[in-house]
Amino acid sequence: MKNILVIGAGLSSSYLIKYLLDNAHLHNWHITVADADLIHAQNKINNHIKGTAVSLNINDSVERDELISENDLVISMLPASMHILVAKDCITHKKHLITASYISPEMQALHIDAMKAGVLFLNECGLDPGIDHLSAMKIIHDIQHKGGVITSFKSFCGGLVAPEFDDNPWNYKFTWNPRNVILAGQATAKYLENGELKFIPSSRIFTQTEEIKVDGYGEFESYANRDSLSYIKPYGIESAQTVLRGTLRRKNYSINWNNIIKLGLTDDSFIIYDADRLTYRDFVSAFTPGHGKENLELRVCDFLSIKQDADAFKKLQWLGLFDNIKINLKEATPAQILQNLLQQKWTLNKGDLDMIVMHHEVKYINEIGNCELGNKKLDEGTKMNTIISSLVVKGENEVLTAMAKTVGLPMAIAAKLILTNQLKARGVHMPTTAEFYIPILKELEKFGVKFEEKFV
Amino acid sequence: MKNILVIGAGLSSSYLIKYLLDNAHLHNWHITVADADLIHAQNKINNHIKGTAVSLNINDSVERDELISENDLVISMLPASMHILVAKDCITHKKHLITASYISPEMQALHIDAMKAGVLFLNECGLDPGIDHLSAMKIIHDIQHKGGVITSFKSFCGGLVAPEFDDNPWNYKFTWNPRNVILAGQATAKYLENGELKFIPSSRIFTQTEEIKVDGYGEFESYANRDSLSYIKPYGIESAQTVLRGTLRRKNYSINWNNIIKLGLTDDSFIIYDADRLTYRDFVSAFTPGHGKENLELRVCDFLSIKQDADAFKKLQWLGLFDNIKINLKEATPAQILQNLLQQKWTLNKGDLDMIVMHHEVKYINEIGNCELGNKKLDEGTKMNTIISSLVVKGENEVLTAMAKTVGLPMAIAAKLILTNQLKARGVHMPTTAEFYIPILKELEKFGVKFEEKFV
Repeated sequence: MKNILVIGAGLSSSYLIKYLLDNAHLHNWHITVADADLIHAQNKINNHIKGTAVSLNINDSVERDELISENDLVISMLPASMHILVAKDCITHKKHLITASYISPEMQALHIDAMKAGVLFLNECGLDPGIDHLSAMKIIHDIQHKGGVITSFKSFCGGLVAPEFDDNPWNYKFTWNPRNVILAGQATAKYLENGELKFIPSSRIFTQTEEIKVDGYGEFESYANRDSLSYIKPYGIESAQTVLRGTLRRKNYSINWNNIIKLGLTDDSFIIYDADRLTYRDFVSAFTPGHGKENLELRVCDFLSIKQDADAFKKLQWLGLFDNIKINLKEATPAQILQNLLQQKWTLNKGDLDMIVMHHEVKYINEIGNCELGNKKLDEGTKMNTIISSLVVKGENEVLTAMAKTVGLPMAIAAKLILTNQLKARGVHMPTTAEFYIPILKELEKFGVKFEEKFV
Repeated sequence: MKNILVIGAGLSSSYLIKYLLDNAHLHNWHITVADADLIHAQNKINNHIKGTAVSLNINDSVERDELISENDLVISMLPASMHILVAKDCITHKKHLITASYISPEMQALHIDAMKAGVLFLNECGLDPGIDHLSAMKIIHDIQHKGGVITSFKSFCGGLVAPEFDDNPWNYKFTWNPRNVILAGQATAKYLENGELKFIPSSRIFTQTEEIKVDGYGEFESYANRDSLSYIKPYGIESAQTVLRGTLRRKNYSINWNNIIKLGLTDDSFIIYDADRLTYRDFVSAFTPGHGKENLELRVCDFLSIKQDADAFKKLQWLGLFDNIKINLKEATPAQILQNLLQQKWTLNKGDLDMIVMHHEVKYINEIGNCELGNKKLDEGTKMNTIISSLVVKGENEVLTAMAKTVGLPMAIAAKLILTNQLKARGVHMPTTAEFYIPILKELEKFGVKFEEKFV
């Protein structure tokens, strides 16, 4: 028998735990789910004979150490900064570890220790990062193994509401951590375009978008992610003249969100004291040039160069930004006040399903010699090819969301591969090699997590 | 005999040390100047019989403690974060302390200890903060003592190049820490206007400027400082419907500096590695939408909505932003790269003199009853008055700059007042009461640091 420990029983663990319990009899696993809140853990186990729910104070080193020592593999669903606590115990007790988070410098520093302990610390094995690595690396390696040279790599991913439940003017509802949505784009975006280094400062990330069409799902747009450059080396695409990763939203989301940023409402750098003495109207008025609250609508339109009967204005109005309703937070940053308002507007209603969209566009040339990249014309003999690979996953219900499914399944499948000795890698890794992407992508397909590829 | 210790012998200490040495015989003082670099300290003492230069490693607690124990009063010209080291030794040895920096929470926490030790820790006693407090409080108290009620308080200050040496298209040269100029306006500005709370996010601080005329010196403009609201309580101007503090520049500086911010060149949040492989042209191109370095000028004009023959474009060009010259920094943030370039352009030439401008505009009403403030009309009987108070100080030479004079003299005079028992305050203070502003402003006038007041 093998023992698996899942730490963290939040919404995003639902599909992961379901998979492990569903496969527990077949592989003779016992699943322990630990959470600060025992009820959360119990709800996930739901009296399954192969499962145990326990409460865990993650900062109690004795408790943590004991629990980890009793298991063969640990899946940490904790906030990213807390994985390191678990990782150090996993070194001590020689246990495998899986996370869906970016490899932090502290985690990377454990590489040699994990190798010596003979264990695999597999990180970035959720959706994004996770399925993006798996699917991109399969395409990249396929091209490279056939002698092709990659000239452009673009990859986009977004968590959205499924079209059937898309019933608000922003075509967006929160399906993941709302705070991350409010604070999106607050760091400079860095990417490569036609051989040139490109930076987009945070003040205009939402103005430089790219249009994306996904067959059967219509039009989307993408704004640039923080750091696309850091993918060049791990992906082995140093030949690419364009490398861009972005976040997907429905068309026109960005230009309207940019109006909110221009006003300054996403500011998270200072606290407004006695915010509960202000209405949302006062709040917006404070950020709008000019004065006089009675003509706030005009001032906002003036400042944003939009008309009061324009769609852009109606979207702001729909959010309740001009309402004379008191803010129900005592001390909060502008970003927190905005989040508090939007959580009343952009919430999934009962029965609403979410949707994940991932989309890669990879360009490559077949002949290695005689080619010039970037802006310059290719020689006549050189053929430029484009592969488009798209994934759309809809939630099954309010618990088994598309987000929980695409974040949880890759980790669950990886856990099975480790415990059945199908993975040779040891030390700290992300899933960019064939031993990861071939079996994981294959099994994901059985769950409907399947990319559609086409050449254009 | 009284012993005075000045810690820090940089450019900004020149006038302070000169005053102390010039007055040493009269008051029977001995002045010790301590600096990490002995040569700096020696240059300031210049073999004066009443002075001693010593080298000091500020982090060596034994060295620091001994030096402080031997003196009666300490003036710390260290970077703001380091005053606290000195302050704690001053508590131990019961020594007075003077700084030109904002009172940090750590400094404020020493208030009771300093009172118990019977010493004065006088902070914010330079130019800004310093002369701004002294001069504003004199006006405010004069009005209030006559029964007036302050309805608006605006205060502006800037360090500039004197008009005779103002020979570049930006009408600006660095006369103080260049890094602070590059990073100016990167925090949200907060102020009060006509009774309404106002916020300006960092992305548009340089677009919301106010025009200021100073008799005999022409037109200036001001952009809002970080936090004007925090002055309401210490100044006792809770009656004011408008409270705004700003930084002065010559006209049109802000709109042109805003173009640099829009491009993203003041970004200090990430490092460009191998920056020395890039030219300034590559650097600007990376931040400009579109691609193709040959048409960079067009792309910049397009992005900023300016014409290539416009003054705004010529100002960018004059800075060397389009030059094909390699950046001579290996690893640097965009802000550091920009600073490195601007330090070659905005430097005071040999013989150039600097200039300090400070300008207050205070509005008040005489009758206390029967008045409505803000947007509303005042009753007929109520008289609205405005006092304008302006200070212009030019540097005497390259060492005795206007900046060194206006930062150093208030501290030097305060030191004299303390050592001649003319100040009763004990504990942690800023100079907002009459016992400070009356004698300090009076003596500053003898040095030509004199406000011109007028009623309009």
